[in-house]
Amino acid sequence: MGEFELLERVRERLPAPGPRVRLGSGDDAAIVVPGGATATSVDALVDGVHFRREWSSPAQIGRKALAVALSDLAAMGAEAGEAYVVLGVPTDLDEAGCLEILDGIAALAAETGASLAGGDVTRAPALTLAMTVVGHAPSPERLVTRGGARPGDALVVTGELGGAAAGLLLLEGTRDCGVDPPIGGSTPQSARGHEGEEGGGGSVEGERGRLIARQLEPRPRLAAGRALAEAGATAMIDLSDGLGGDAQRLAEASAAKLEIEAALLPLEPGVDAVAAGAGSDPLELAASGGEDYELLAALPQERLAEAAEAVAQREGVALTRIGAVADGAGVEIRLPDGRLSPPRGFDQLR
Amino acid sequence: MGEFELLERVRERLPAPGPRVRLGSGDDAAIVVPGGATATSVDALVDGVHFRREWSSPAQIGRKALAVALSDLAAMGAEAGEAYVVLGVPTDLDEAGCLEILDGIAALAAETGASLAGGDVTRAPALTLAMTVVGHAPSPERLVTRGGARPGDALVVTGELGGAAAGLLLLEGTRDCGVDPPIGGSTPQSARGHEGEEGGGGSVEGERGRLIARQLEPRPRLAAGRALAEAGATAMIDLSDGLGGDAQRLAEASAAKLEIEAALLPLEPGVDAVAAGAGSDPLELAASGGEDYELLAALPQERLAEAAEAVAQREGVALTRIGAVADGAGVEIRLPDGRLSPPRGFDQLR
Repeated sequence: MGEFELLERVRERLPAPGPRVRLGSGDDAAIVVPGGATATSVDALVDGVHFRREWSSPAQIGRKALAVALSDLAAMGAEAGEAYVVLGVPTDLDEAGCLEILDGIAALAAETGASLAGGDVTRAPALTLAMTVVGHAPSPERLVTRGGARPGDALVVTGELGGAAAGLLLLEGTRDCGVDPPIGGSTPQSARGHEGEEGGGGSVEGERGRLIARQLEPRPRLAAGRALAEAGATAMIDLSDGLGGDAQRLAEASAAKLEIEAALLPLEPGVDAVAAGAGSDPLELAASGGEDYELLAALPQERLAEAAEAVAQREGVALTRIGAVADGAGVEIRLPDGRLSPPRGFDQLR
Repeated sequence: MGEFELLERVRERLPAPGPRVRLGSGDDAAIVVPGGATATSVDALVDGVHFRREWSSPAQIGRKALAVALSDLAAMGAEAGEAYVVLGVPTDLDEAGCLEILDGIAALAAETGASLAGGDVTRAPALTLAMTVVGHAPSPERLVTRGGARPGDALVVTGELGGAAAGLLLLEGTRDCGVDPPIGGSTPQSARGHEGEEGGGGSVEGERGRLIARQLEPRPRLAAGRALAEAGATAMIDLSDGLGGDAQRLAEASAAKLEIEAALLPLEPGVDAVAAGAGSDPLELAASGGEDYELLAALPQERLAEAAEAVAQREGVALTRIGAVADGAGVEIRLPDGRLSPPRGFDQLR
């Protein structure tokens, strides 16, 4: 199957694009009429670097590629708009596999209101996905950069931390539970488990599946990002590389100091147990494991309650105050024993 | 050098972005305030598939990746806006090589008025460039799709055809002239040669360099595309895969027939000689060789002179009438001997 035929098959499977898209895939370029301002981000995932085909189904790989890209838009407080995909296909991935990847992308696009508006398919030595996503806002002032945190602001984080790193440890078999990790075709339910929509009950296996889903099927916090932007967030970043490094980046961009209370970090249930089994510190998984794709934001103290309510209502996750913005530079972490030296993980980064 | 450090070095080298870019590389996403409508296209180039590192310098590879992407915007009649690059770096490409690629991209961006507004760098098994480009127009109606050609329209092409295919034959050594192809660091002068800015005189070596430059350093016809859009072009496409296949696509999208006179095709000087040496038909190089990145457009007959003058003035190349749009479907080529069967090349495609 040639490039043109594959693209044609893909186009047939796409849902109708959103109202801003005047012309979708199939011409020289997509035509879009943006509202006020756009936020644009690109992200690439390569087999063996960012994922492993033996751990993920093609649909999971496609879904994660789009999720990781959309997470950057969430961190701007933007509305998801258009997505463009470059698919580099190795010789051992057949047409069905390619279409399954694109179905995974299309499924998350539909869930988030994004339109898959264009793409390119090429041969490549390893499976490669490069996603470009464009988000929208009524004006550039409504988008939240990393650079506006002010001394006195509260520092908050959405959802729970450490789950993706714990899931990776489980996949790597560091914690041998005698149960194989779910390879490929893992259920959509597991993806939603970490959203708290699954009543299911804290069993080790339920937790195990949920932690692995946090690694393989991250969800962009788009609704939370918009809620935080509307609640006056002064700076925001998504936690892709880990709280330690990402907090440093926000501190640098804002020319301020971030003071974090380690005891306040919201650990994903099960992270403690996985860390214990692997001889790791759960705080390290939460602080430097990365890939949780939660949002770290600064916002005025007086708007904390309003922001927490909006995030809970619109994203279905908690908003946790983990510290404050102060005069100065860098990131300072107060450990549970009161010391001010950073825990492992914070100082390993960068 | 890690990803963050490389991105930091890249950012230091970028020229100031254009006025639409409110926030460039370095945050979660770039912030842009588009005017009316955007045209967005993505293109990926992979070593061994789209280029060969032994034939091109890193700067040439970067330049070509952006040129190929911008050519799609030229075909919409859009103004070049922002470019976003994903760079997949193999272990045998060092930091200097990466920066040289990005310098090549930045140089063409500066020449075309595009802003390099974001990117991502990752490890990859083969050098991979995925470019996303965003063009602008005052309204969606000002952009030219492939779908509006009307019976009675003239069919025109910018510049000259077959040069890129002839250059590829020269690089592949099909025509052994006893002179090695210029590897890497080929001169910027050669890139400009096919613009007609070089007075230089028809010598075999001058022609040889010019043909190779058409292959390695294509130029997006952005000024011609805008001139054609303003002159009322009803449909437009860039010639990336070859006139034969690309004309088919325009015919299909417009639900019309394209009648092309083979004798009218503007052959790049030197293509005849290279074709003769390689035992090929020069018409085949012009029709199916691909990668000339000229524009094929339909426009009302009465605006032909105005369009040709504008293209000559703004792009410095000729606009040649090669046929007409008629009722029907498909592409029909009248050969120099009067027959109506398609020449080799036209029927090989799709």
